[in-house]
Amino acid sequence: MFKNCLRLRYFQQEQRCEILQTLRDLGERRVIALILKHLDEMPQMPIPFGDDVSAYPVNGDELFVLKTDMLVGKTDVPKGMSLWQAARKAVVMNVSDFAAKGVKPLAALVSLGLPNNITGKELEEIAEGLKVGAREYGVYILGGDTNEASDFIISISMFGVAKKDALMLRSGAKPNDVVAVTDFFGKTSAGLKILLEGFKASEDVRSVLLEAVLMPKARLNEGLALSASGAVTAAIDSSDGLAWSLHEIAKASGVGFIIDNVPVASEVVKFAELNGLDPVELALYGGEEYELVLTINPNLWSEAEKAVKQAGGTLIKIGKATAQKRVFLEFKGEKRVIKPVGWEHFRRR
Amino acid sequence: MFKNCLRLRYFQQEQRCEILQTLRDLGERRVIALILKHLDEMPQMPIPFGDDVSAYPVNGDELFVLKTDMLVGKTDVPKGMSLWQAARKAVVMNVSDFAAKGVKPLAALVSLGLPNNITGKELEEIAEGLKVGAREYGVYILGGDTNEASDFIISISMFGVAKKDALMLRSGAKPNDVVAVTDFFGKTSAGLKILLEGFKASEDVRSVLLEAVLMPKARLNEGLALSASGAVTAAIDSSDGLAWSLHEIAKASGVGFIIDNVPVASEVVKFAELNGLDPVELALYGGEEYELVLTINPNLWSEAEKAVKQAGGTLIKIGKATAQKRVFLEFKGEKRVIKPVGWEHFRRR
Repeated sequence: MFKNCLRLRYFQQEQRCEILQTLRDLGERRVIALILKHLDEMPQMPIPFGDDVSAYPVNGDELFVLKTDMLVGKTDVPKGMSLWQAARKAVVMNVSDFAAKGVKPLAALVSLGLPNNITGKELEEIAEGLKVGAREYGVYILGGDTNEASDFIISISMFGVAKKDALMLRSGAKPNDVVAVTDFFGKTSAGLKILLEGFKASEDVRSVLLEAVLMPKARLNEGLALSASGAVTAAIDSSDGLAWSLHEIAKASGVGFIIDNVPVASEVVKFAELNGLDPVELALYGGEEYELVLTINPNLWSEAEKAVKQAGGTLIKIGKATAQKRVFLEFKGEKRVIKPVGWEHFRRR
Repeated sequence: MFKNCLRLRYFQQEQRCEILQTLRDLGERRVIALILKHLDEMPQMPIPFGDDVSAYPVNGDELFVLKTDMLVGKTDVPKGMSLWQAARKAVVMNVSDFAAKGVKPLAALVSLGLPNNITGKELEEIAEGLKVGAREYGVYILGGDTNEASDFIISISMFGVAKKDALMLRSGAKPNDVVAVTDFFGKTSAGLKILLEGFKASEDVRSVLLEAVLMPKARLNEGLALSASGAVTAAIDSSDGLAWSLHEIAKASGVGFIIDNVPVASEVVKFAELNGLDPVELALYGGEEYELVLTINPNLWSEAEKAVKQAGGTLIKIGKATAQKRVFLEFKGEKRVIKPVGWEHFRRR
């Protein structure tokens, strides 16, 4: 389904993509709504259901911040990714959500579901990937459990501590805030097309595009620096794609966006040219990218920019928030809707 | 394999059970050892790898206590258990580990792996089971994620806060400590034999045996009261069976045990008689039972007994700890070894 959408040219008025009625199509949002209907909400929950992390108040304004995210082999591990890389990615996925909230993750638990025929060597590869991923971000793995399952599954739960005021939620964006991201987009879309669909890439960009898929990085330093700057009004990570992430902030904050500078990676422009694809489409409707998508108080833009620079990163302006609650792309004076199309995982490919 | 073992009569000198080389047989211990070899251990970890929960030091002697446990449909959900019951059980499994450490769990995250063909109604049943299980023990579910998987999977991570001194670890048992448990054993072994192997039970015991499997309870009140009593030297929950749990404490504490009073439930005696089974075997080598197995300072026995009574439970003396590092059953003056045989999940049945 997503694959078909991706092949449509950007700016085509209607995306006639058939939606299969699988669990994911239902989709995850409706599945979660069904579940939440039954749960008792904790009184005075510091972070509402649906943000990237959860929290529990501990001492005064101090919060215990928690996150769980499950990597499932058949949907999250593309052909060409080693077990070592998959295990490392499972950690990065969770760290990225902490990065987006401006919270330092401290430790993690790992619950493994393993096929019966897995070997000791493969297990060691998984353990090494978990270790490397965790230590890359200063996280310790404290424990976990192992289980036999049909799928290869790594369920990680991670935690950290934060002051309530330092958290960057999805819900604080205001009209006229600057919209910014921490890198150029589209590399994972392109990389996955190489790995899964046999698309071609020239030698000079191929390794960059594959690296984006196989060795993703979480923007933890940038997230922590941005939180400290006090300039961020809303934040999310882009794991479900740039377009989807913008819509999530828009919905949680009650704003809209005009995006006038889609941040397309130069490698993606080259890849798209070679394969007759639309680079803007690759950048907007990708996913499995772990950049930060942020709204920033315009009066504090230079503080934000400086903070990210000191953390070793870049902050790229891509548009601004609006009172009108829609998400538009403005391109050569023409305004088109950016649809809330998210990442649909590998199973559609 | 386990099934065959169960059918051997107790006190038979050698249990000639063939061990299949599956992941579990390897077994979980060696799998975990392989993984731990690769992980970096956090300096001054307050609870070592391998205990029932993990912990992270926060303020002074205060610890964040964490646990993750995954329920996998094909191994943890026997025929006859509803999705509602399975979801509730997934919560109880985690609460039970907190109970065994004397820590009140506060909140949980839930990561679901769901087959593609699951319906909305089934999802609501799962959510309701999670809610009921959590609220039964005063836990709130704060968040989670959903994923498509081949298996039906509920991975729960739970956390609480505890003073370091109040934790009941596996490692504090001393020779002459009293060994005690919080109920009579064997009901789940018998219940599973009814559900999975067509064994018979008389009407008066059938519902009790099935209830033990389908609606397990965690001994949270008892665990918290015991922790407060200061009488407990070591503790574990009996989810892998009584024999296995005794061996775990023995190993972690560097002691042995003489068990002279195997706590067999009266319903299990009746069930065993009807089916020509050994009730002691059912009680020792069962599993999926969520009782507490404890060692208690003999000078504080009455305090422990009183604490559990006030919490609405019972404490049953079953033997004592010894300097000799072996686990024996003493029966009519005869001493036989209790083997470290643990629960082998449903897949062997």
